[in-house]
Amino acid sequence: MAPLAGDWSYAEWNATYNAFSFGIAAMGSATIFFWLQLANVSKSYRTALIIAGIVTCITTYRNFGYYNSWVEAFKVVTNDGGDYTVTLTGTPFLYEYRDRGDWMLTLPLLLIELILVMKLPHEETVSLCWKLGVASVLMVALGHFLEIQDDLPVLWIWWFLAMIPFCYVVRTLVVGLNEATSKQPTPAAASLVSAARYVTVVSWLAYPFVGLAWQAMGSVGLASPTALMYEQIGYSLVDVWAKAFFGVLIWAIASEKSAVEESGRLLPH
Amino acid sequence: MAPLAGDWSYAEWNATYNAFSFGIAAMGSATIFFWLQLANVSKSYRTALIIAGIVTCITTYRNFGYYNSWVEAFKVVTNDGGDYTVTLTGTPFLYEYRDRGDWMLTLPLLLIELILVMKLPHEETVSLCWKLGVASVLMVALGHFLEIQDDLPVLWIWWFLAMIPFCYVVRTLVVGLNEATSKQPTPAAASLVSAARYVTVVSWLAYPFVGLAWQAMGSVGLASPTALMYEQIGYSLVDVWAKAFFGVLIWAIASEKSAVEESGRLLPH
Repeated sequence: MAPLAGDWSYAEWNATYNAFSFGIAAMGSATIFFWLQLANVSKSYRTALIIAGIVTCITTYRNFGYYNSWVEAFKVVTNDGGDYTVTLTGTPFLYEYRDRGDWMLTLPLLLIELILVMKLPHEETVSLCWKLGVASVLMVALGHFLEIQDDLPVLWIWWFLAMIPFCYVVRTLVVGLNEATSKQPTPAAASLVSAARYVTVVSWLAYPFVGLAWQAMGSVGLASPTALMYEQIGYSLVDVWAKAFFGVLIWAIASEKSAVEESGRLLPH
Repeated sequence: MAPLAGDWSYAEWNATYNAFSFGIAAMGSATIFFWLQLANVSKSYRTALIIAGIVTCITTYRNFGYYNSWVEAFKVVTNDGGDYTVTLTGTPFLYEYRDRGDWMLTLPLLLIELILVMKLPHEETVSLCWKLGVASVLMVALGHFLEIQDDLPVLWIWWFLAMIPFCYVVRTLVVGLNEATSKQPTPAAASLVSAARYVTVVSWLAYPFVGLAWQAMGSVGLASPTALMYEQIGYSLVDVWAKAFFGVLIWAIASEKSAVEESGRLLPH
């Protein structure tokens, strides 16, 4: 956890600042959307939608923290009407543990959200929620040791260990849920569930590789402002994909299945 | 991203300050209106109304950011009981990326809101939401490179590229939705949908031309306080037109069609 590099241009500082501001707006909007939709889906799917909103709410909170810490870590000023200069105040930009705090909560919740909206038999739901929930917390915990590691060979050991629960989750999403997906009440619901599964897989692939790319750049001396800027913009966009867009799919599934249940058209597809 | 010019009169500073304050009041009120109306329209139209409120909520948030940053960028004081003097504190007025963060979210949402309230066949709705959503995000992204560009010839290249998705969206609004509009359940609904389409077209024309006018003034040395003041007042007014008034039309359509559906008068017009 090396201190922030000091040579930020105003444009880089401003783009990173706005990545956090965009994160607040995007995640906050998604939260409101999910919670306002609660009345429009049937009771069975409301827990999934509540959780979809909790996930984006946690990330809104995280972005507020980033935003405040970012402002405190820098002094941005022009003294003579010339270009803005960006200097460090010496106060740290606190982000290294905060993303882990987010993921520790949101990654299991995202998986639980998907399982709940599938409406599997009760026992299967409970068992899958536990297995996927524990695996994802384990992956975040192991990924934490990866990220605080500066030594490249040891880093790869943690990366390998974190890959075990990671692969278990991805395998369950890609293979394990195939049968359950085919039992969704309509073809539209089944294809939305498939889409949600693959959105999750893609985002599970994105998070560790963004982190790994960042670590690798750091260990070969490339942890420049530009790299940190792209990491933060990258995470903001991955959040939109993995939490907001994913949640919209969960809402679409809940909405489709509620309509089917209300009209009594329970076609076993 | 040149620093703010320093020669603000008190009246210019105050007018710009109040453009932001007006933006908070107008966008905040619109948000409350749309969400409080949710219970008064039938389920099919609630998503459109939720999104109408999210759009104005995002713009309320943006105006809060502008307002705070504006206050921090200036010192406004009279020392001897004479006229107020406006001097720069040296802190930047952060707006360059924040409008892009707003548009990246609100432009696709505005188009999706219109498509949803039209209640087209499901597949057409999904396909139009994707096409218009992606085109508008693409336009904002290309427009971003336009706005950070100081070199006039290169600026025109980005402007031309941004015009491609722009023309696609305008063409879809003006021509592509003609047939679907004629299928609205009542003549009143059809003419409200037409109005909403043309409100969108006008605002789509306004945003890039306000931005282009501002860039062109800057590149010939006219980025004066007066120009920035008119740009910010202009954007505040365009927001009322494109987001609040447009949202009211969406609510009127939802309200009219809900009444028709509830009374069972489903006249194929």
